Amino acid sequence: MNNDAFLAACRDAIGDSHVLTSDADKAGYLTDQRQRYTGQATAVVKPASTEEVAQLVQLCNQFRIPIVPQGGNTGLVLGSVPDQSGQAIVLSLKRLNHIRAVDPVNHTITAEAGCILQQIQDAATTANRLFPLSLAAEGSCTIGGNLSTNAGGTAVLRYGNSRELCLGLEVVTAQGDIMHGLRGLRKDNTGYDLRDLYIGAEGTLGIITAAVLKLFPRPTVQLTALAALQSPAAALRLLTLAQERCGATLTGFELMSDLCLQLVGKHFPQLPFPFAQRHPHYVLLELSDSEPAPHASALLEALMSEALEQDICQDAVLASSGTQSRALWQLRESISSAQAKEGKNIKHDISLPISRIAEFIADTDALLQQHFPACRNVTFGHLGDGNLHYNVSPPEGVDAERFIGQQAAINLLVHDNVNRMNGSISAEHGLGALKREEILRYKSPVEIALMKTIKQALDPLNLMNPGKVI
Amino acid sequence: MNNDAFLAACRDAIGDSHVLTSDADKAGYLTDQRQRYTGQATAVVKPASTEEVAQLVQLCNQFRIPIVPQGGNTGLVLGSVPDQSGQAIVLSLKRLNHIRAVDPVNHTITAEAGCILQQIQDAATTANRLFPLSLAAEGSCTIGGNLSTNAGGTAVLRYGNSRELCLGLEVVTAQGDIMHGLRGLRKDNTGYDLRDLYIGAEGTLGIITAAVLKLFPRPTVQLTALAALQSPAAALRLLTLAQERCGATLTGFELMSDLCLQLVGKHFPQLPFPFAQRHPHYVLLELSDSEPAPHASALLEALMSEALEQDICQDAVLASSGTQSRALWQLRESISSAQAKEGKNIKHDISLPISRIAEFIADTDALLQQHFPACRNVTFGHLGDGNLHYNVSPPEGVDAERFIGQQAAINLLVHDNVNRMNGSISAEHGLGALKREEILRYKSPVEIALMKTIKQALDPLNLMNPGKVI
Repeated sequence: MNNDAFLAACRDAIGDSHVLTSDADKAGYLTDQRQRYTGQATAVVKPASTEEVAQLVQLCNQFRIPIVPQGGNTGLVLGSVPDQSGQAIVLSLKRLNHIRAVDPVNHTITAEAGCILQQIQDAATTANRLFPLSLAAEGSCTIGGNLSTNAGGTAVLRYGNSRELCLGLEVVTAQGDIMHGLRGLRKDNTGYDLRDLYIGAEGTLGIITAAVLKLFPRPTVQLTALAALQSPAAALRLLTLAQERCGATLTGFELMSDLCLQLVGKHFPQLPFPFAQRHPHYVLLELSDSEPAPHASALLEALMSEALEQDICQDAVLASSGTQSRALWQLRESISSAQAKEGKNIKHDISLPISRIAEFIADTDALLQQHFPACRNVTFGHLGDGNLHYNVSPPEGVDAERFIGQQAAINLLVHDNVNRMNGSISAEHGLGALKREEILRYKSPVEIALMKTIKQALDPLNLMNPGKVI
Repeated sequence: MNNDAFLAACRDAIGDSHVLTSDADKAGYLTDQRQRYTGQATAVVKPASTEEVAQLVQLCNQFRIPIVPQGGNTGLVLGSVPDQSGQAIVLSLKRLNHIRAVDPVNHTITAEAGCILQQIQDAATTANRLFPLSLAAEGSCTIGGNLSTNAGGTAVLRYGNSRELCLGLEVVTAQGDIMHGLRGLRKDNTGYDLRDLYIGAEGTLGIITAAVLKLFPRPTVQLTALAALQSPAAALRLLTLAQERCGATLTGFELMSDLCLQLVGKHFPQLPFPFAQRHPHYVLLELSDSEPAPHASALLEALMSEALEQDICQDAVLASSGTQSRALWQLRESISSAQAKEGKNIKHDISLPISRIAEFIADTDALLQQHFPACRNVTFGHLGDGNLHYNVSPPEGVDAERFIGQQAAINLLVHDNVNRMNGSISAEHGLGALKREEILRYKSPVEIALMKTIKQALDPLNLMNPGKVI
């Protein structure tokens, strides 16, 4: 009865056709991206404006209905799907999809939470600017989700995570008030940093409805090289050298072990392997430059020559065209698919102090071999950010399902080692429902207590995405 | 009696000689930098370690003693001095002054809160790295104070504010617990952003005791130019052009009105004016480059030629040596002193969307002339960050004290206009005690309420720097 009254009030607020209650209509909103989990919801509601979001949150307060905010639902940690209770609503932000303003002189764009990331990239391009956030899901993820999870992606080395790309937020609080914080200022020291509290909170403190985002001048040229090296330690030496020689021009620095490119070669034989012989590791470098193309070319060539002379790397290929650059990136971007074609595997999204990456890989590889003999490490990632996709495939010929059964033990081994070296068990994906329990093992009790205090203070009824993060 | 017991407990905790109670000993800690205000304190306590800070905060909880954390006490908004009640202690962080670690490969430095900013810059230099935070007080301000006020300075355009330069914090909470968050990670999405909550909180939520800070490769060369222009609007066109042509190489972009340089010429006649004739405005540009010097030279020359051709600027001088570069910077850096020598004046530390700067200056100048005829605008600042030092001197021949009497009315006019154009009334100095009331006029009630909720949740006894910020 109570539920009927709530749904009627929702329909009054945002219109019948935007309150979905049939199983068929709701189905597209209840299952996570990787199709590992399906929850239940009273309804899926689709407001069209910040005011409608505020009204719905007020109704949820009145009727004590939990809210699961949802953007593109492309998250990997079960942060944007409801639990099994069926008590919550899914509040989809997809209809808040307007670019409100582009200011090329201030280098800002103001976008509503439901804008697709690619839509924002395109609007920036139209204004001859760059919005640098870029990740695999950019064609379907929303900026509200990007901000709520502090998404990383491929341009963090130069431009930072989503948090660093945001200047101001509009938020509907857990009580249904609208916080008007859409300021496009580089400097504003007038009190507590509410913006960064909502960013990365995964919808557990309030709902981001719009944001002012930073734009940058468009690079005139992007150039890549692939270096072949003996070890992650050599890759770190190359990173330091590249940072010293190229400064902020260096926008990408991706590590790949040989097994990664072996799997790419096996499952995507049309992608040519660019070296005459195999090497233990490879690094993909990218420069982005504001000067005419010959400048970046010369810079990259000088860097790679120096690296070869110093025996930091053993071989290198430089892309001499955009097509060649894309071909090199394609090797890197095909690793996940190749590993998937090889069969199920165990993924870790970890970060470490960059200086400890080599030690971490050597030590953890050895520990895994000791406890899970012949398991295969498919190690790659954003080395320039200290972020590894430290994935583990079953030994050749071993049944994947049986191997996946050891996931908890393997996670424990890997994450304990990450923690011992002061790293993070979730570099860019967040905690969601998936890592909410696990983080208690690694985060200090004082930090956990502070997080709980903040959650309790800002959302005392625990209606905002309950069961996520904390 | 109670007070005696408290002081005895403090002496037990950190030693007699570090609990200062005589007027003579306390005097150096009670007056603000500009000598406008002197408060009172039960004692000045000087712990030497994070554990001692925690012990003292626990004692303050037990005895209900308010705490004013203090670093270099160089703040400009009365944030680090106690009030008149005499109930509080000043907790000086000066003895927590150790660099705990430098990691050149991870590009991080770990420093205790009481480290002088210059000490950190020097430690970075020794490791062939750059810590880019730089401001006038760098010889005496502490990194704890820099972080607690989210200090800006001269390198924000390229490197960001203090917040963006910090990866991890160690904090003593308002209850005296130690939050161990000294992680040196570029990516870590494991819960609420506690770090950025303590940064900029001006000691009202807890006490920052140490931080992991970002380092950068040292530029091989820094080069400056001075451009002469007709208007702030032309300066904005030059900014856009410089950003497009020079990308991240552009590290400084400072606007100065002609009156600024007239005052510099009057009070520092030894500093040569570099143009044959006067112009309404000037811009100081700085490039920082990782390549050999001729590259930045050519880049800057090409930029200025293009700006002259496009009639964006009317004249330009390029520094051809480090000495010449410093001479140009000296003009910029002497403005505040020149204005002080001219007599008392009214200062505003404001920020705006960069695209609205020209409109703001024209509009506010006109309003001021209307209401305060012949007052003199001494307008300069970090145009690249949208941050103006919009200072107002009395009309020539008018008594400064009488003019200063109009400060409240002038502040109101200027800040109302800032607010109308979505700017901030405190770009880089913070709120402290000085702007705590004024901000209520400009910040939305929802934001103020959220700030109060957080303050109440994290410091329910209101012991942390009471009367500041909120």
